[in-house]
Amino acid sequence: MNNNTASEADTVLTGITTTGTPHLGNYVGAIRPAIAASQNTDVNAYYFLADFHALIKCQEPEKVHQSTLEIAATWLALGLNTDNVVFYRQSDIPEIPQLTWFLNCVAAKGLMNRAHAYKDSVQKNLDSGEDTDYGITMGLFSYPVLMAADILMFNATKVPVGRDQIQHIEMARDIGQRFNHIYGEHFTLPEAVVDDHVAVLQGLDGRKMSKSYGNTIPLFLPEKQLKKHINKIVTNLLEPGEPKDPDTSTVFQIWRAFATKEQTDAMRREFENGIAWGEAKKQLFELINEELREPRERYNELMENPDYIETTLKAGAEKARAVCTPFMDKLNRAVGLYPLV
Amino acid sequence: MNNNTASEADTVLTGITTTGTPHLGNYVGAIRPAIAASQNTDVNAYYFLADFHALIKCQEPEKVHQSTLEIAATWLALGLNTDNVVFYRQSDIPEIPQLTWFLNCVAAKGLMNRAHAYKDSVQKNLDSGEDTDYGITMGLFSYPVLMAADILMFNATKVPVGRDQIQHIEMARDIGQRFNHIYGEHFTLPEAVVDDHVAVLQGLDGRKMSKSYGNTIPLFLPEKQLKKHINKIVTNLLEPGEPKDPDTSTVFQIWRAFATKEQTDAMRREFENGIAWGEAKKQLFELINEELREPRERYNELMENPDYIETTLKAGAEKARAVCTPFMDKLNRAVGLYPLV
Repeated sequence: MNNNTASEADTVLTGITTTGTPHLGNYVGAIRPAIAASQNTDVNAYYFLADFHALIKCQEPEKVHQSTLEIAATWLALGLNTDNVVFYRQSDIPEIPQLTWFLNCVAAKGLMNRAHAYKDSVQKNLDSGEDTDYGITMGLFSYPVLMAADILMFNATKVPVGRDQIQHIEMARDIGQRFNHIYGEHFTLPEAVVDDHVAVLQGLDGRKMSKSYGNTIPLFLPEKQLKKHINKIVTNLLEPGEPKDPDTSTVFQIWRAFATKEQTDAMRREFENGIAWGEAKKQLFELINEELREPRERYNELMENPDYIETTLKAGAEKARAVCTPFMDKLNRAVGLYPLV
Repeated sequence: MNNNTASEADTVLTGITTTGTPHLGNYVGAIRPAIAASQNTDVNAYYFLADFHALIKCQEPEKVHQSTLEIAATWLALGLNTDNVVFYRQSDIPEIPQLTWFLNCVAAKGLMNRAHAYKDSVQKNLDSGEDTDYGITMGLFSYPVLMAADILMFNATKVPVGRDQIQHIEMARDIGQRFNHIYGEHFTLPEAVVDDHVAVLQGLDGRKMSKSYGNTIPLFLPEKQLKKHINKIVTNLLEPGEPKDPDTSTVFQIWRAFATKEQTDAMRREFENGIAWGEAKKQLFELINEELREPRERYNELMENPDYIETTLKAGAEKARAVCTPFMDKLNRAVGLYPLV
């Protein structure tokens, strides 16, 4: 794990799983910082829609498809700089599943047994008296190998992840190292980049904003709907004029994620001065809406132009394959699968 | 499992793992019957060099490569009818590892836990006091999923296998069925075809001829070497003139695998009449050499012309991909990974 920011010699890889509709929590915690990073012209950067990964979680084809569209539109609308970075869809790169197989052949099964996601599923099964592996697919079990292929294919040096994903980067290192040991030094070993200051947003009910809690505010809601959602944020019963505690308030917590330092300080004073909940929510709506208005317009336009998105992704895949097709040739040769002449 | 031979409506798929050098046991037990079957113009047949599978067993690139060359040359030299059947190399079909991932996402991990090959490895570990999964790669563990992809990709109806492989065909059925259940009826479910009359050849030491016992007679040895090997077959100490028991003799057992009914009966009488071991071996050499002389010449020519083999395999891959590229498009659509427009 490494907390340094990326430098010129680095290749940064960011995967975006294509399930669900992005919400404010995703935006603040992952999308906004990643898009800011895409402006850095010094770094070699890859951003990809992880649609092979999506199949592990979602077996409804229309949802996977719709989510791919929405997520691609979201990142483009928010200003992902596709001149600067390679933006592609995982399933457009046939080299990825092929490399996954090569890595399967060097990855220890014992390593996968220790993966948190797998162990959590096993624990749930044990707790409910089920078979250890009940409902667990080979996709879920072997997912760290696919992720290793995603990373090693581009010799990524830095992979920005949440704390819960550090283990997967370590597994990618381990698998890459074993391949290198057997077949020669082909892979650079990646480092996890964890930003401990990433904002974790609260949802409507005050718990962490998450699809699984059903407490999210979708990112590109139409204005009216956004207002409605914000009005649903749970508050206490304090009347206008009564001082309110900003540090236990979801409204304030979300405010802080969108506000400047000055705006945050100002709102803190308003809370102490007893701002009405209705007024605080109105101001919160305006603040968020201000930041999202333009991207939302672009998003809506993009959603009307899927052919533009498709073309962009295909161009990205071409750039990605310009790197990974020759690299895969080298790897084929390394393992012994190459033309007879 | 089905013991019937294939009929017009059938698609038969035969995989050939590219490790090692073919020996007489492989020839009699697998290659000869498969090549005879390739003459059947009524059947849709696929024969492939399973080089992705080879990586599970062999991490020496030169060996994998050399074995691919030798095995392709062997099958062609023995008369595999490539006008009649599709003969390709697995690694030339990028759709195979992609389908493998799709199948991973529906295959139960619990199913893999029950695979004989995996369970045997676990048992060996337990017996020697090692960790359960010591030395077991994800390649070994997930190999039945790759095999399911090999089979389902071409909607094979019949897969000729040894008894020990029946379970893998059942797994392919199970995985195909789950995919069909979730995503609609895309796959035909395969049946194992087990020929219980397949000759299992004894090796030099009288145990089953197998690379792992080091008791094999390589198929295309030069004449002198073939003679030398045959002379090394273990016999008892009975002198010329003393009656010998054909049914406990490796020489006789190998004889039977190459002889006509009449030749077999004649040799049985020779044994009863006390044929000298040296003479029996001389006759055995002549019988085998007669069958292998011409193919051996073709084999040697082919080994000098790897470009011809490569061209043949590439042409086979083209025929195979003419089937599986459009099928994969359909499967991509089924799971939700398809262009946005």
